[in-house]
Amino acid sequence: MNKDEISKIVELICRELSDSAELIEMEASAKHIHLSEEDAEILFGGSLTIDRELSQPGQYLYKERVSLIGPKDIIRNVAILGPPRSATQVELSVSDARSLGIKPVFRLSGDIDGTPGILVEAKGKVVSLEQGVIVAKRHIHMRPEDAQQLGIEDNAIVSVEADGERSVVFKDVIVRVSDAFQKRLHVDYDEANAAGLKPGQIGRIKV
Amino acid sequence: MNKDEISKIVELICRELSDSAELIEMEASAKHIHLSEEDAEILFGGSLTIDRELSQPGQYLYKERVSLIGPKDIIRNVAILGPPRSATQVELSVSDARSLGIKPVFRLSGDIDGTPGILVEAKGKVVSLEQGVIVAKRHIHMRPEDAQQLGIEDNAIVSVEADGERSVVFKDVIVRVSDAFQKRLHVDYDEANAAGLKPGQIGRIKV
Repeated sequence: MNKDEISKIVELICRELSDSAELIEMEASAKHIHLSEEDAEILFGGSLTIDRELSQPGQYLYKERVSLIGPKDIIRNVAILGPPRSATQVELSVSDARSLGIKPVFRLSGDIDGTPGILVEAKGKVVSLEQGVIVAKRHIHMRPEDAQQLGIEDNAIVSVEADGERSVVFKDVIVRVSDAFQKRLHVDYDEANAAGLKPGQIGRIKV
Repeated sequence: MNKDEISKIVELICRELSDSAELIEMEASAKHIHLSEEDAEILFGGSLTIDRELSQPGQYLYKERVSLIGPKDIIRNVAILGPPRSATQVELSVSDARSLGIKPVFRLSGDIDGTPGILVEAKGKVVSLEQGVIVAKRHIHMRPEDAQQLGIEDNAIVSVEADGERSVVFKDVIVRVSDAFQKRLHVDYDEANAAGLKPGQIGRIKV
């Protein structure tokens, strides 16, 4: 091969890499709760059982479930995710929040100051949360090498095109970058339904 | 004024008109049913009472309500819209369809061939629909002069940008043009929640 041919191949490989860097699996998160160790102790005596691993490394689903008791309604059989957090956090869709009679507040996970509270029940025990109910802002998890390929950094705001039977572009998507992550877009079920998302569907990141 | 000044003013007016042509009020439609005269007769003895007019001229909400009985759950207190249709049609969000245990099928209003059926109950009377349950494709109603300003025709496909606390672009929006319409984007509650829509929020049409 001469130099021109090598340059052309390098260019093709780079284009391929950058194309695939834009692609991302889109996952819908159902309503769930992260319990603090204290609240897990009160509700379950601390003895929760891991059911299965989730797509993000180190995250898992417990076998136990809770009920969420709002001013307007109760949602039963709500999933508990681990590992434990420093503060208990409930993640709902806007639909869930409305049906419970709780104001939907859009926040990033962990940012719960001043958010609404709720009653959490399991096995006849109740924890009354002063705050901690959020509608999670849609977000991307990716590794540093993914971010580098896209030329972006932690906390970048991007769009994601979800083309299908009911195409939408999700704007204002925040990117979280960590070695501990697997590349995924996380949306809630309102967003997944609005886009007609199918399991494993691939979207395209627009920087 | 000289010719140049007049040209400039004409240009400004044209730009203003075309800008405002792009703007559209976005409305969320809750689950509802359109009854045929036959089914209204079976369920209510034909005697329905108009509650109020809707945003589209000639469309109204009745005071009466029905229950939708799916294989998995029941949704009570569902709105009935008039005037009567030639065939009964139920419009749900994907969330509603899933909770009832019915496959969500995306269709334009009126296009119900081969869609799922459901049981409709009111006052102890039941109608069993063979078909008629749809998830309405998002759509725009506009008048011929609105379409002309945008340079589009009936059945055009456009996008609508909904910027707010949770911005999305709705793609694949079909435009229905008629003298009988008022300019509106109609989406369901999944879509409204995904975009964090507020009542009366204005979107921007992209042709």
